[in-house]
Amino acid sequence: MASPAFRIDNLQYANWSRKIFEQMRAGGLDAVHVTIAYHETFRETVANIEKWNRWFEQHGDLIMPGRWASDVRRARETGRTAIFFGFQNPSPIEDDIGLVEVLHDLGARFMQLSYNNQSLLATGCYEAEDPGITRMGKEVIREMNRVGLVIDMSHSADRSTFEAMEISTRPIAITHANPKAWAPALRNKSDDILRALAQSGGMLGFSLYPHHLKDKSDCTLASFCEMAARTAEIMGPAAIGIGSDLCQDQPDSVVEWMRVGRWSKSIDYGEGSADNPGFPPMPEWYRDNRDFGNLRDGLLAVGFSEAETDGILGENWLRFYETNFVPAKALAGELAKAV
Amino acid sequence: MASPAFRIDNLQYANWSRKIFEQMRAGGLDAVHVTIAYHETFRETVANIEKWNRWFEQHGDLIMPGRWASDVRRARETGRTAIFFGFQNPSPIEDDIGLVEVLHDLGARFMQLSYNNQSLLATGCYEAEDPGITRMGKEVIREMNRVGLVIDMSHSADRSTFEAMEISTRPIAITHANPKAWAPALRNKSDDILRALAQSGGMLGFSLYPHHLKDKSDCTLASFCEMAARTAEIMGPAAIGIGSDLCQDQPDSVVEWMRVGRWSKSIDYGEGSADNPGFPPMPEWYRDNRDFGNLRDGLLAVGFSEAETDGILGENWLRFYETNFVPAKALAGELAKAV
Repeated sequence: MASPAFRIDNLQYANWSRKIFEQMRAGGLDAVHVTIAYHETFRETVANIEKWNRWFEQHGDLIMPGRWASDVRRARETGRTAIFFGFQNPSPIEDDIGLVEVLHDLGARFMQLSYNNQSLLATGCYEAEDPGITRMGKEVIREMNRVGLVIDMSHSADRSTFEAMEISTRPIAITHANPKAWAPALRNKSDDILRALAQSGGMLGFSLYPHHLKDKSDCTLASFCEMAARTAEIMGPAAIGIGSDLCQDQPDSVVEWMRVGRWSKSIDYGEGSADNPGFPPMPEWYRDNRDFGNLRDGLLAVGFSEAETDGILGENWLRFYETNFVPAKALAGELAKAV
Repeated sequence: MASPAFRIDNLQYANWSRKIFEQMRAGGLDAVHVTIAYHETFRETVANIEKWNRWFEQHGDLIMPGRWASDVRRARETGRTAIFFGFQNPSPIEDDIGLVEVLHDLGARFMQLSYNNQSLLATGCYEAEDPGITRMGKEVIREMNRVGLVIDMSHSADRSTFEAMEISTRPIAITHANPKAWAPALRNKSDDILRALAQSGGMLGFSLYPHHLKDKSDCTLASFCEMAARTAEIMGPAAIGIGSDLCQDQPDSVVEWMRVGRWSKSIDYGEGSADNPGFPPMPEWYRDNRDFGNLRDGLLAVGFSEAETDGILGENWLRFYETNFVPAKALAGELAKAV
């Protein structure tokens, strides 16, 4: 019997604990891309990496550092989950392009060019104006392409997103978002963006964060999977995956940090509201990592084939990891060898 | 015909330039351990790593980053010199033990527990009192052992050095120093230390810095090689190598940074004096990397065999790299496989 397909969740930001790592194993996840910075400076990001290094020591029976696609296979072989690092904002590189390579060396594999606001590189989806990729942004995209740090435009505004796809010589990702046509959140993406993303070899990870779902916490599995089917019609079934945005066990102070960081003295509710300021409850069919398998049932039920379903639940991301985490030079070398 | 033995200089701190990288190639050096921090903070050390990353891009035909012993072989195969990073002081880890692993991930392979002064970890050779390895020092030694960052006691005081050898579960190094019996510099080492170093599997790199030489800049090649022969009688010919301490093309402001850092507002001449405050001239038979081959002639002339000479000029360090740069866990795995 062939071993089961690889399972990858390409975005989580939980309040990490042994319990959650055990749930990753229970859900059969071979790899998880975890957010380790929202508004952190370089030094604060390094402190978060230090925290992860301690977890890798303390829970080495459940998790291991993920650097390359081969680590996903190694994790499978040793019954663990490979953890890949990412940033939701370019704050960890501060104003220093040299930190792109340094942070890639420390394990960073995805970086959003902007969170909700304007950054030094690009515009966020909550700004009134989007002047596109900045001068530094163009330089940093080139450097990210060189070292193998994937550009993520999940929270970016439209013009910046189109320009990032145009400027980048390697595919980009939208790690966690859904089509706007299905759920009209400001953060969700237009069909035009999704089409351009697929055409440029990029990947979309479907979010399970209630603010990105139709009917929010009441969204049904069937509705979610129908949305996936409709997106596959636009992007093809090989360009989609999961980026659940699971924020398990986080206190509400964390959603405030995500939204407000240090950029404002007032409160900003982001996708929430004054009535509903905290983390929304997850849909009952996706409470945590243990429910990852439910997605499989739902996807098969809306007509995806076994192979397409395996692709969406991990194989597509694994293929993306394969070519997009390695330095451009190494990739060129590998391609040369393959020819 | 067998390919020539590997050549390694296990300490340099030059004012790096393409000219010097070309001279490394002319001298046939397959690897060089370079100092990238004297008194730098973590962030300043990262800035120095960024500088090196740029040099690796700009001079990728001559040098490449060195992380593992296998990189020395890869450098040879591609006609380049592998560059390994080290610190002469533990200042890059500041007061944060988590930075040991972070900096190892960024390429650090040697770290002195103290420079000339007392540090948070150990005592330097210019202090009046040496209370031995500190509480934090014991923790950091264990962490360095775990991740594969080699303890270097070149500038440390005697008691701290003996204690480091005792506490460390992996061999330590004195990357650049000579026997005190030959040249009575405060920085040079007693026969007792050299004996204990060899007994614990450690390595000594002979320094060519004039302040560590008998007759300083006037030292002869014969005298230097006779000293090596006498040291081999104490340590064995497999525990010795070269750590030239070449400080080529450095302005005198740099020797001041090395000696005074930010710890004093007055001047400290270290091994120099008010009459002779700058870098001393190198012996005429060792002006720069191109003269590395002269050592070969000198060592053979004092009676070392071809194999012993090859050992001293690189093979001994390569063997040391092989087992001491990898994390303890990986090493245990390899040994388990080998059994």
